[in-house]
Amino acid sequence: MPTLEGIFVPFVVPLDDEGSINETELRRYLDWLIERGVHGLYANGSTGEFLRFTPEERRLIVKVACETSAGRVPVLAGAAEANVTETLRACETYAAFGARAVAVVSPYYYRLGPEALGAYFHEIGSQSSLDVLLYNIPMFSSPLDIVTICRLSELDRIIGIKDSSGDISFMQRMIMEIRFNRPDFSFLTGWDPAIAAMLFVGATGGVLASAGVVPELALAIYASVMQCRLERAKELQAHLIRLFDVMLSTGEFPSGFRAGAQGRGFAIGRSRQPMSDLGVDCKLRVGQKIHDGLEVLA
Amino acid sequence: MPTLEGIFVPFVVPLDDEGSINETELRRYLDWLIERGVHGLYANGSTGEFLRFTPEERRLIVKVACETSAGRVPVLAGAAEANVTETLRACETYAAFGARAVAVVSPYYYRLGPEALGAYFHEIGSQSSLDVLLYNIPMFSSPLDIVTICRLSELDRIIGIKDSSGDISFMQRMIMEIRFNRPDFSFLTGWDPAIAAMLFVGATGGVLASAGVVPELALAIYASVMQCRLERAKELQAHLIRLFDVMLSTGEFPSGFRAGAQGRGFAIGRSRQPMSDLGVDCKLRVGQKIHDGLEVLA
Amino acid sequence: MPTLEGIFVPFVVPLDDEGSINETELRRYLDWLIERGVHGLYANGSTGEFLRFTPEERRLIVKVACETSAGRVPVLAGAAEANVTETLRACETYAAFGARAVAVVSPYYYRLGPEALGAYFHEIGSQSSLDVLLYNIPMFSSPLDIVTICRLSELDRIIGIKDSSGDISFMQRMIMEIRFNRPDFSFLTGWDPAIAAMLFVGATGGVLASAGVVPELALAIYASVMQCRLERAKELQAHLIRLFDVMLSTGEFPSGFRAGAQGRGFAIGRSRQPMSDLGVDCKLRVGQKIHDGLEVLA
Amino acid sequence: MPTLEGIFVPFVVPLDDEGSINETELRRYLDWLIERGVHGLYANGSTGEFLRFTPEERRLIVKVACETSAGRVPVLAGAAEANVTETLRACETYAAFGARAVAVVSPYYYRLGPEALGAYFHEIGSQSSLDVLLYNIPMFSSPLDIVTICRLSELDRIIGIKDSSGDISFMQRMIMEIRFNRPDFSFLTGWDPAIAAMLFVGATGGVLASAGVVPELALAIYASVMQCRLERAKELQAHLIRLFDVMLSTGEFPSGFRAGAQGRGFAIGRSRQPMSDLGVDCKLRVGQKIHDGLEVLA
Repeated sequence: MPTLEGIFVPFVVPLDDEGSINETELRRYLDWLIERGVHGLYANGSTGEFLRFTPEERRLIVKVACETSAGRVPVLAGAAEANVTETLRACETYAAFGARAVAVVSPYYYRLGPEALGAYFHEIGSQSSLDVLLYNIPMFSSPLDIVTICRLSELDRIIGIKDSSGDISFMQRMIMEIRFNRPDFSFLTGWDPAIAAMLFVGATGGVLASAGVVPELALAIYASVMQCRLERAKELQAHLIRLFDVMLSTGEFPSGFRAGAQGRGFAIGRSRQPMSDLGVDCKLRVGQKIHDGLEVLA
Repeated sequence: MPTLEGIFVPFVVPLDDEGSINETELRRYLDWLIERGVHGLYANGSTGEFLRFTPEERRLIVKVACETSAGRVPVLAGAAEANVTETLRACETYAAFGARAVAVVSPYYYRLGPEALGAYFHEIGSQSSLDVLLYNIPMFSSPLDIVTICRLSELDRIIGIKDSSGDISFMQRMIMEIRFNRPDFSFLTGWDPAIAAMLFVGATGGVLASAGVVPELALAIYASVMQCRLERAKELQAHLIRLFDVMLSTGEFPSGFRAGAQGRGFAIGRSRQPMSDLGVDCKLRVGQKIHDGLEVLA
Repeated sequence: MPTLEGIFVPFVVPLDDEGSINETELRRYLDWLIERGVHGLYANGSTGEFLRFTPEERRLIVKVACETSAGRVPVLAGAAEANVTETLRACETYAAFGARAVAVVSPYYYRLGPEALGAYFHEIGSQSSLDVLLYNIPMFSSPLDIVTICRLSELDRIIGIKDSSGDISFMQRMIMEIRFNRPDFSFLTGWDPAIAAMLFVGATGGVLASAGVVPELALAIYASVMQCRLERAKELQAHLIRLFDVMLSTGEFPSGFRAGAQGRGFAIGRSRQPMSDLGVDCKLRVGQKIHDGLEVLA
Repeated sequence: MPTLEGIFVPFVVPLDDEGSINETELRRYLDWLIERGVHGLYANGSTGEFLRFTPEERRLIVKVACETSAGRVPVLAGAAEANVTETLRACETYAAFGARAVAVVSPYYYRLGPEALGAYFHEIGSQSSLDVLLYNIPMFSSPLDIVTICRLSELDRIIGIKDSSGDISFMQRMIMEIRFNRPDFSFLTGWDPAIAAMLFVGATGGVLASAGVVPELALAIYASVMQCRLERAKELQAHLIRLFDVMLSTGEFPSGFRAGAQGRGFAIGRSRQPMSDLGVDCKLRVGQKIHDGLEVLA
């Protein structure tokens, strides 16, 4: 049985007028997501702008997520600090908070080759006090290849991968190479427009930015595939794609997703990235697509 | 009903020792493919190295395919000549040969933007004497975007698209935007490792280089999805991926696929690209994977 | 002494209202260029849209260039036919026409690796009846690397390289690795905005699309560097950049350069690429920059 | 007069056996560089692995550089913290330490468009208590375009740019658009293999990783260009290229440059990136090229 299954939310972080973390609103938002039925939370992901917070703020975000969940759903904690030592320190802290696992993005800025990537994750996987999820997002960071992922899957501490490439052949290659030896290994896609197809080829779930905006829709797609209602799954997927595409293409990522959560009634506030926020027109477009996506569920 | 359904073979072209087209062997090879049950032939595709033949040779290849098929299966003919006038001339010739449609790759070398691509295909789609299949292969030529494809789908003569991007979200986007207005539009994937998943999201078929090597396996995947035997489809897909990956990664494309057809008993000969042929070891590896892939069908 | 020195023009081809080659205007245009003092002509380059002409038309273009030059300046002839055999045939024809050398672009569409590229050029370099210029244009075709170029420079028939990468470190690397063993080897840049700097690091000349529009300016830059009037060279270079940038960025390449030649009084006509021509506003902008560039010479 | 001229060293940071900053050795190394005659120090650059240190460590590195320089040469301090607020805080600290300016890399991980980049730098440029150098390194972070750079050059606090693109046309475009309005603006290249050519087109200096290994050679190139001894400059440039290429291509960047500084007698220690260090053979190769490069100066 895979360790992690279902829909995880890489949640955005509400900020107040001074640009500080709005802890109250974050709790209210996470509570709402859990009540909608999401299967887990994912703190400090790309959608959560982990890079724009200080190490201390990242810790606060994980703490709030763990406290709000209070054991109701597993919390995955992004943990890509400045270097291996700092990352391992964060792991300890997150373990103490009650996180289920850490997700470690492959190194960014410098583009590392397979051997160096393997060494990096091997060191973390060997020493971490908490289970580790690999995080592959080739658009933003050094790409992991199949051979390296397979080797890393031999470490017990490494329990799965979140892959945001959107490449379905890559997903199937990983699954067919790893599943036999590691039936517990989790394969989560981070590419919302392909969640139905990814589940079809064997992914165990998704970490979906749009699930922070329309958790109902993402969960309905997941349920439809689980129940083998494939036509329904594809119909719902089409609606998720329309919403996702609007949120992705307007403004700078993840502004569209922040606007989406705002559209659901949360005071998300301005991003820390100057001028990356959306205009009123864009917000209306996002709002319309949210409405369309939810209506199909009614 | 989609116009084109099933598995089409973008066949390689056997050459004799002087490097000329081995017409006899080509007929024998195409006849074998048709007898295996493939749903159509695709002449002068990327796997068929259309670029390395002269305009006259390309005509010969289509002629041989049409004659060998003799109406048993539809023949699609790649028709990307030097310019629109030459392409339209080729269309007339191919219509006279009995080809079902022409497939026109988007312009290569220069990378054209959406507007110029739209104008190019609009001119061909408006004037062609034969149905037209768009051919999108971003790895090699100017990429087509969804909006342009949708507009082109308003022309009756344009009956479908072959998309070799391997991007399943892109496939689903095309389908959800076009199918309602054009229920006859055909969506063929050119990405073998994703054929099962592409059919799952609604593709009507595939143009698969590996179907020229193991038509039995490609056809079995297609049949499994049609019969909703999804687990079987995925199992077979895994074998196709293993074979495809070996053929793609050894030597220069499409050497591995030429070696594969050779491995099935046809005298394919050396490619026209100097030194792009595989060593003995590679041929053995390809042969082993062909064997593995066929054994699972037994 | 390098075999090829100075400013070569990769000229555009005038077309009449039916889209056929306007031979009379082509002769008039080439004659004008030679009278302006350009050091050579370059037929069937990227700017000359070699890909949009038939093999027969490409032969006609080289024939017209050779006849018009009538020995006044050397003619380089682009010769990238469908395969090695066809390319060698073109070489023979071009030799008979009186071309000085053929320029062979590295294979496009398929992206070949270093070994296959080396084999391709080795076969041409060993068998050609005419001197060969390598043509590296990574934006459009398979990139050549330093090691492969060095090896190919050991063949007598290979007399130089046209490099359109615009990468000045790459140019200097080539020069420092090859010049000692082959003092006759020619290094021509195809990147107009860097011609002054490329000459500074040792390039022997340029194949400049903008020299077909403002030969006076390109020649003045060349002369300034030869005379060590470096400040003047840079001042003129700035004007060439402004014109080049406008011609490159408006419409689809090489529309801006066709509009530029039109602006100098030649009936270039519409391109064969549908809708790639410029609007009136763009033509005015190109015209203004031509005017600015020439005024600085007065 | 440009504010910043000459050769600046983006120095590597010595680490002890526990992986902590070896402060004593760092002081000794920086002192050696200043005594060799470098025109300035550049703390926390890409070569300095700023990303692999904590915010506190980055402060320590700048402090050590300022103290060691003690006013002998200007210190530039890389300051790309998690967000604008944190970056401004770092600026204040670095001003107090005595840094001459901060260098701010364009945001990485997310790829921002021109408008968002402009807003980001505008906010920093408007509020910083210290002069600001833009840092463009398209290989690793969001690329800055000419128009955005020109607009930012209107802010007094923004005094220059470090550009590591290696694109000489880009450098000349910047200079010709900005110099007239801002004669004090500094243009530093970060691309060692083109330093001579960049100075030729008007760059005011370089931030050169190899200057941390062979400051003598980098300084000799700079002096040669200043004295118009261009042939000598190019000869020395060739040696710098050979050394740079070896250091860049072996191991993961910046391992080769760390090995180079080690080769000059400093205890640089292992990098924080697991397994990114070089083998003995590579170190010997680096050592040989250092020797060759210095010998030409003798």
